[in-house]
Amino acid sequence: MMRGALELFIEQGFEQTTALQIAERAGVTERTFFRTFVDKREVLFHASHELQERIVAAIETTPSRAAPLEVVTGAMETATALLEENRAYSRQRAGVIAANKSLQERELLKMHSISQAVADALRERGVPDLQARMAAASGVSFFSIGFELWIADGETRTLAECIREAREQLDALSAG
Amino acid sequence: MMRGALELFIEQGFEQTTALQIAERAGVTERTFFRTFVDKREVLFHASHELQERIVAAIETTPSRAAPLEVVTGAMETATALLEENRAYSRQRAGVIAANKSLQERELLKMHSISQAVADALRERGVPDLQARMAAASGVSFFSIGFELWIADGETRTLAECIREAREQLDALSAG
Repeated sequence: MMRGALELFIEQGFEQTTALQIAERAGVTERTFFRTFVDKREVLFHASHELQERIVAAIETTPSRAAPLEVVTGAMETATALLEENRAYSRQRAGVIAANKSLQERELLKMHSISQAVADALRERGVPDLQARMAAASGVSFFSIGFELWIADGETRTLAECIREAREQLDALSAG
Repeated sequence: MMRGALELFIEQGFEQTTALQIAERAGVTERTFFRTFVDKREVLFHASHELQERIVAAIETTPSRAAPLEVVTGAMETATALLEENRAYSRQRAGVIAANKSLQERELLKMHSISQAVADALRERGVPDLQARMAAASGVSFFSIGFELWIADGETRTLAECIREAREQLDALSAG
């Protein structure tokens, strides 16, 4: 249903597209649509919950002596397997989101949810609260900036490599 | 108008409060309300634009040899003068925002806007693009986490001190 919805958003604009149109293109009823998605915006974020679960699962299986920032970066890299094959879709989707403030807000809320889940998972591992929050926020920044790199025109590195690149930039930032 | 609106949101809930009620409590017309705020949510974010301008101005006046992360942290600390006297208001406001997803989304969008403005200001200073984006995202994390500390029950440190505390946590995160 997501690819059909994205096509409609690109063809006629997000605001102009109705849930009924998306349902019809997917060959389901509007009622089925709203059983799956709480609102029209959610169609573009169907993978977000699974991404979050994969990141948390990866954190839980990381050896316990790793530094928090490495735990988070590694978990982000592991979870990218979900997206790696979908660069063209991700690129088009990002264009639709960038053109609509309410979609940007929804995306930021999803990333915030991931940040909170990551902080929870780190606290579970015994990372002190404030460090857990800061590592989670940093991890989401690596992911978001890495994702922007990954969908840029002509980029050929994997999403995991782009996330690593963003993480490595952080080390340069404390140098004058 | 903002304090009256916050009172109404606390008394009767954000969703249940109308723009007309906020306008009436402030002794203005609904039309005046919508000349000032594009929607009801914006009442809680009136300071966000000025905060952004102050942060950018502080970046522009920082000596050019400072490390990007220090430039950003210093600018955040400088800009807190705007909020430092309003801890009780900020605490109540945060409670209202936490109870409403659409307000959380708006807050995240405001912080994202600040992040983009900070990245622009850093690029203006010659910081490479990717470093500028990463430093901006980190700065917003320092601010957001510092803000959470500052409004916690019993916290007596200034907002600037709480932001510095968040920034210092980052150094601990690379250690195993």
